[in-house]
Amino acid sequence: MRQFLVLGHDAPTDPDFSLDDLPGAGRVDVLCRCVTAALLLSHGIREDARIWLVLGDSLSVRFEGSAVRRLNPDERSTAALVRTALAEREEAIGHIDAESSPGVFVSRRGLEAVLDETAERVSGKHTLVTLHENGTPITAVDVPTDPVFVLSDHREFTEREAELLAERSDERVRLGPERLHANHAITVAHNYLDTAGLERY
Amino acid sequence: MRQFLVLGHDAPTDPDFSLDDLPGAGRVDVLCRCVTAALLLSHGIREDARIWLVLGDSLSVRFEGSAVRRLNPDERSTAALVRTALAEREEAIGHIDAESSPGVFVSRRGLEAVLDETAERVSGKHTLVTLHENGTPITAVDVPTDPVFVLSDHREFTEREAELLAERSDERVRLGPERLHANHAITVAHNYLDTAGLERY
Repeated sequence: MRQFLVLGHDAPTDPDFSLDDLPGAGRVDVLCRCVTAALLLSHGIREDARIWLVLGDSLSVRFEGSAVRRLNPDERSTAALVRTALAEREEAIGHIDAESSPGVFVSRRGLEAVLDETAERVSGKHTLVTLHENGTPITAVDVPTDPVFVLSDHREFTEREAELLAERSDERVRLGPERLHANHAITVAHNYLDTAGLERY
Repeated sequence: MRQFLVLGHDAPTDPDFSLDDLPGAGRVDVLCRCVTAALLLSHGIREDARIWLVLGDSLSVRFEGSAVRRLNPDERSTAALVRTALAEREEAIGHIDAESSPGVFVSRRGLEAVLDETAERVSGKHTLVTLHENGTPITAVDVPTDPVFVLSDHREFTEREAELLAERSDERVRLGPERLHANHAITVAHNYLDTAGLERY
């Protein structure tokens, strides 16, 4: 199981945003590209992948590769799924999820609660990997078991997030010499895992 | 110089499409994601990169990393640049480009003319690399010099395209065991080149 956890610092927490201006809606466009990078293959889906969007302090939307339906590659239709999830947020009570569309769940979990949950949702050891430009090159760390990759949107991690991640992470990793957008980082992380064990130059 | 050439089989060739339904506009959404994957870094641009969108048989739009302005990561604003380019297509005469926005050019070139042009625009040897699921693993080929990666949108190459590419390509390469969307393939190709020469497991 591969999990991705993306922190949406400016992301909307209610469904009152326009699909015609996703960048203006707290950069929902970034989050939508992360969802499709995490779950979609060409003409297929990564069934063994999951992505959590943490929206602000205490709300998250989870997409399950094994169960999601009607996920298309474009930003707008993915944003519509996020909006539907936010419209159902009153149905999520405590840490109980509400399923807003097939395979899409909203819950009242912030970063810390999602970190707890990512660990619970895999049996045995998982590896929490924070993706960050100051991390160790991914090529110099062992291929992680049941990785949970944590990324930030277009902003840096806040001080509080950085502290929590420093405490909880098994690895802090960078994917290459260039600073990548979050969605591009997800694509590269998948490819790294897809090709792990293959001979490389 | 890294160049990407994406064949948009159903792509519009006039600007009469709605920004509210990019998938319905001949999958312009795919092409827009390819442009941003080819040219954007987090808070920066890949100045030594160029992408050609070949739209139908005889029109292409070229984005220059070294000159492009107002390129944002979201699909809709990129589609607006494509639309502006198509609105200027009457200004492109023969193989002479028209610059529709800073760093964005429209010309009456189909695949074959674009292939000729990619070769002319680098000094010395360049390597034409067709990305295809039946290719050699990228890890088993030498790092290409001034690569031109050719990809198809959501459709297969047509028979005529496949023949032309078989004749002209130096390599036919695949990026991993999974079939990737064209934009994800561009991201992986960049990372492969970014990390070439670095030690890998």
